[in-house]
Amino acid sequence: MARIGIFDSGVGGLTVQRAILQAVPAADTLYLGDTARVPYGTKSAETVTAYSLRNARLLASHGIDLLVVACNTASAVALPALRAELSVPVLGVVEPGARAAVMTSRSGRIGVIGTQGTIASGAYQEAIRAARPDATVFARACPLLVPLAEEGWTDPADEVVRAVVRRYLAPVREAGVDTLVLGCTHYPLLAEAIAAELPGVVLVDSARAIAAEVGERFPADAAGREGAHRFFVTDTPARFLAVAGRFLGRAVDAAEHVDV
Amino acid sequence: MARIGIFDSGVGGLTVQRAILQAVPAADTLYLGDTARVPYGTKSAETVTAYSLRNARLLASHGIDLLVVACNTASAVALPALRAELSVPVLGVVEPGARAAVMTSRSGRIGVIGTQGTIASGAYQEAIRAARPDATVFARACPLLVPLAEEGWTDPADEVVRAVVRRYLAPVREAGVDTLVLGCTHYPLLAEAIAAELPGVVLVDSARAIAAEVGERFPADAAGREGAHRFFVTDTPARFLAVAGRFLGRAVDAAEHVDV
Repeated sequence: MARIGIFDSGVGGLTVQRAILQAVPAADTLYLGDTARVPYGTKSAETVTAYSLRNARLLASHGIDLLVVACNTASAVALPALRAELSVPVLGVVEPGARAAVMTSRSGRIGVIGTQGTIASGAYQEAIRAARPDATVFARACPLLVPLAEEGWTDPADEVVRAVVRRYLAPVREAGVDTLVLGCTHYPLLAEAIAAELPGVVLVDSARAIAAEVGERFPADAAGREGAHRFFVTDTPARFLAVAGRFLGRAVDAAEHVDV
Repeated sequence: MARIGIFDSGVGGLTVQRAILQAVPAADTLYLGDTARVPYGTKSAETVTAYSLRNARLLASHGIDLLVVACNTASAVALPALRAELSVPVLGVVEPGARAAVMTSRSGRIGVIGTQGTIASGAYQEAIRAARPDATVFARACPLLVPLAEEGWTDPADEVVRAVVRRYLAPVREAGVDTLVLGCTHYPLLAEAIAAELPGVVLVDSARAIAAEVGERFPADAAGREGAHRFFVTDTPARFLAVAGRFLGRAVDAAEHVDV
């Protein structure tokens, strides 16, 4: 059975793990959430790369066949460094998300929303244009969406949610995109509110895109036994355990504290 | 001349430094912003204490006469550990803020807003009741206010600002407080919007309260030469330098990257 390492800046990457487990339910996983240093989206590429390397080393020390970088910001800035250091394949969410967007879009007018770090890196913009050179990409950083989702304010009827989402998406709407990449693990929690502001626009979730690629790599894990799952966090496990189940879609009973 | 070390989870503590420099303009300062691991308000007391100790050691290694903990969350949870380790006096913002609130309040009905970590610690609540045992304290965590201020959305006429502030403060308003402690370094940026929701309520800024206490310790630094100021950050200096001047109220030309 495959043994897949997954890391994220915090708890959001569990939505990526959830999609992966739907594709390869028999795979074993090791998940590391860097909850002591979350978020990555507001930090420099240098710092995110340094933290990503430490996370990857911890997971690699437990023996993995594949490293999945669930965090969009880390995927956007740290993949070359991770691939240079690790001896196993490293997959980030940016390229699968970009490819899915290109396959979805008819007009070639594609929107991307993400953290400041993800958008400033230009990684989605480059990956989309690499897959479709004539694409026009409208990228927008939405710093308040992660804290909004973490506060649990996600109801599309909520006036705060509506006002924040409208402000960020107004220029994307005016740009006339037909596809929008949700370039952050937290954004699917706000998908309804985002969809309400962008009628007719298809939302692309990078988590589902990367899960499909993982499924292709490990066809033998598509069925059979139930995989074993182990969780590591850099802050104390209590808060992680309190919300992990909601993100993963199944119970998380234990997490181990690690200092990386 | 006194040499004062100041640390904060990020850039917000510069508002505390600003108030201190108004009280003791001749003092030299060393400021450390833990910008690579910001924020502290959402992390456990154990992690915030560990980071606070590392910050304090860095500042102490440069020789300081006093350590000021500008971060409310660190002040709320890490002071005992810091005082046990350091040989110089350690001042946090919680006790000065609580004392200022008690001196301000007529009714003894006092509100406190802060991060999840600050409010969950109960430090303000305890400090207020220690100074005035018959006080009634209404404490409320407001997780979205820091990202709101960092996004620059602080205009009291802004519909998002008004809606977010109103939602958090409605129960405080209903509680009929006459004084509200702004228990986070970012909140003074939202003071106008907060005041608009709480007419007749006096807002207490812990930064000004601690500056008065520092001024009493170093009367010789109340006038004379202009002190020298040095800045350290744990993320790359660029973003810190871009906003530091706005928080400090004077130009910040250089900051040094440190790994603590």
